Amino acid sequence: MAAIDFDFESLIVDIPDYPEPGIIFKDITPLLKDPQGYAAIIDAIAEHFMNRGITKVVGAEARGFLIGAPVAYRLGVGFVPARKPGKLPRETISESYDLEYGSNELQIHADALTADDVVLIVDDLVATAGTAVAQAKLIKKFGAKLVGLGFLMELEFLHPREALAQATDAEVFSLVKVS
Amino acid sequence: MAAIDFDFESLIVDIPDYPEPGIIFKDITPLLKDPQGYAAIIDAIAEHFMNRGITKVVGAEARGFLIGAPVAYRLGVGFVPARKPGKLPRETISESYDLEYGSNELQIHADALTADDVVLIVDDLVATAGTAVAQAKLIKKFGAKLVGLGFLMELEFLHPREALAQATDAEVFSLVKVS
Repeated sequence: MAAIDFDFESLIVDIPDYPEPGIIFKDITPLLKDPQGYAAIIDAIAEHFMNRGITKVVGAEARGFLIGAPVAYRLGVGFVPARKPGKLPRETISESYDLEYGSNELQIHADALTADDVVLIVDDLVATAGTAVAQAKLIKKFGAKLVGLGFLMELEFLHPREALAQATDAEVFSLVKVS
Repeated sequence: MAAIDFDFESLIVDIPDYPEPGIIFKDITPLLKDPQGYAAIIDAIAEHFMNRGITKVVGAEARGFLIGAPVAYRLGVGFVPARKPGKLPRETISESYDLEYGSNELQIHADALTADDVVLIVDDLVATAGTAVAQAKLIKKFGAKLVGLGFLMELEFLHPREALAQATDAEVFSLVKVS
């Protein structure tokens, strides 16, 4: 496994009070547009979870697609989008969740996973872990095996690992930890 | 350039009257979850546009991320998301557009591109080309050079190339043409 040495934080911009007062939004667009930075995110997450028998990457709309889709490509597996209500046209399985600000629901097509699948969840950010827990619960409903969760950023001060531990014993891996 | 021989259409599901009566929705999720199919989409688009000096891929929220993000990774360039209003936290440049059903607006961060950039637009589908034209106009506002547009599917009966020709002379490339 190649060591990946990139200063991700130098290209993540803090936006205070966005989208609501008291929230610091982490803007990753400067990192996504940087060729070395973008490749380093994808390679670091994919290489960490290589050789675990992963068959599918699940990622949540919309920012989860930005990291999860290329990680799926890099791992040579399929990608399963977890989408907000009204976006998937066929029968779905749903799970509601609380966001850092507000609440929502995630859906996966009912034929997207099987009990034979070995799944990696990928997202840009884990904060209170609401979306990640919802995805873990969705994957469990299919009887599939969740082996890991890979994030660009982990907001440790919101204790996402404690929340995740209630839903899954899968490994949590993040590239940037904000304490 | 490797020949890419995959029957993409076999994994695209037609959903009649979704999201509105008279619209046939093209569901690509069975193709995205197929490892060979997903890799073939990315490789075919990336290999077609390789060696053109591309520096950024632009893709529109949300399904454009599913194809555009891995194509950017495959080309070794950065990815610039074109997002709906209220999603990008800093100064943006905007362009409104008409959808096959309804209308909306796309925004790109004002520092996302420069006049030196050579851009490829990637999306899953081009229909009336509303979002693609909006993205082409956005890229022109930065003074960047648009060299191509790569799509998984082109709905020829809606004449997207005619609409695109009004906005750009960049090459249009699509893997599946629906006439």
